[in-house]
Amino acid sequence: MAEQPYTPKEAMIYSQRIAQLSKALWKSVEKDWQQWIKPFGLNINEHHILWIACHLEGATISEVAKFGVMHVSTAFNFSKKLEERGYLSFSKREDDKRSTYVEVTPEGEALLLQINEHYYDSRHTFLEGSLPLKKLYGRFPEFIELMAVIRNIYGEDFMEIFEKGFKNMEGMFEETDGKLTPKRPPATEDGETEEVL
Amino acid sequence: MAEQPYTPKEAMIYSQRIAQLSKALWKSVEKDWQQWIKPFGLNINEHHILWIACHLEGATISEVAKFGVMHVSTAFNFSKKLEERGYLSFSKREDDKRSTYVEVTPEGEALLLQINEHYYDSRHTFLEGSLPLKKLYGRFPEFIELMAVIRNIYGEDFMEIFEKGFKNMEGMFEETDGKLTPKRPPATEDGETEEVL
Repeated sequence: MAEQPYTPKEAMIYSQRIAQLSKALWKSVEKDWQQWIKPFGLNINEHHILWIACHLEGATISEVAKFGVMHVSTAFNFSKKLEERGYLSFSKREDDKRSTYVEVTPEGEALLLQINEHYYDSRHTFLEGSLPLKKLYGRFPEFIELMAVIRNIYGEDFMEIFEKGFKNMEGMFEETDGKLTPKRPPATEDGETEEVL
Repeated sequence: MAEQPYTPKEAMIYSQRIAQLSKALWKSVEKDWQQWIKPFGLNINEHHILWIACHLEGATISEVAKFGVMHVSTAFNFSKKLEERGYLSFSKREDDKRSTYVEVTPEGEALLLQINEHYYDSRHTFLEGSLPLKKLYGRFPEFIELMAVIRNIYGEDFMEIFEKGFKNMEGMFEETDGKLTPKRPPATEDGETEEVL
C-alpha cells in the first residue's frame, strides 16, 4: 500500500465524493430526460437505443448494450419493443450470421428528429445550471477531467461512438429564427425530399 | 431566442452530451457502490440516508430526501427500515413538533465505520480510472466546473452539507500501515473507549 501514489483515506474520500456527486448529477439529468421524451412514449433506454442504432448506422445488441451502458437483456428487450412499434428492424448480416443487428427504420429516424425538435418544450436543469459558466467563459464547459476518467473506464471505442454520434447530430439540424429544424435536402424534381440522416 | 447567449443547437448538443456522459458515469458508480455495501445488507439509498443522518447529526425526513436526492416517500420508507434494524431512531424535537427527525444510533455509527473500513474489499472503477490523472497532476481531479453546475442546480446548502460530511470523514479515520481504521479516543480510566463520530 505504501508504494501506491495515494493514501487509502484520501482515495476513499475522493471516491465517495464522486459517487455522491454523480448520484446528484444523474438524478437531475434522468428527471429532465424522462420529461423530455415522455410525450413520445419512450423511456430513457429506448431513446438511447434508437440514438445508438441511428448513429452507428446499425448495431449489434451487444454494441447497443455497451454504448448504452445497459445489460444485454435490457438492450434486447427494449429493442424488441421498438421493433414492435416499427422504429427498429432486426436483421442478420451475410458476413456475421451469429449476431443480430438492429437498424433504425425511417419511422424511427423521423421520431428521433421530432424528439430533438421538441427539445425545448421541457426544462433541462443541467443546461440552465451551466449558463453562468457559459457566460463567464464564453463557452460551455468541456469537463475534460471527467471525460478522461470516463475514457479510462469505458475505453477508446466507447468515446469514439459517443463523439461520432454528437458530430452526426451537428449535421442533422439547422436553426431558423432560433428554432431547431431537421436539415432537409433540396426537393428533387418530382417534388419529394429524400431521407436525411 | 436570438438574445440568448447560446444557439439552441449548440445548447442541445451540449446538454445531450452531458446526459449520456452522466448516465455512463452513474452506471459505473452505482455498480461499485452496490458491490461495496452489499455484504452489509444495505442498498444505496439506505447507506446514503445513514451517511446524511450521521453527518448532519440528526436530520428531518425532508432534509434526508433533499441531500440524498430521493423522493420524500423513499427517504421515509428506507429510514423506517433502518429504524427496524436498529440503525436509526425517529424522534420529535421540542422546538419543532411537526417534523420527524432521524438520528443514527450507536449501532448505525458502528456500521458506517465498518463499511468504510472495508472500502477496499471491492473494486472502485471510477477511482481506478482516476489514477492516471492523479499520477499526471499529482492530485485527484477536483471537477470544479461540474461542482459549479451542481451548485447551481442544488443550491448552496446542498453543497455545504456535502462538504461538511466529507470534512467529518477526514477526522473519522486514521491510517495504520496503509490500512483504514476508525479513530479511537484514548481509553478512559475504567478501560472503556468512548463513542467516536
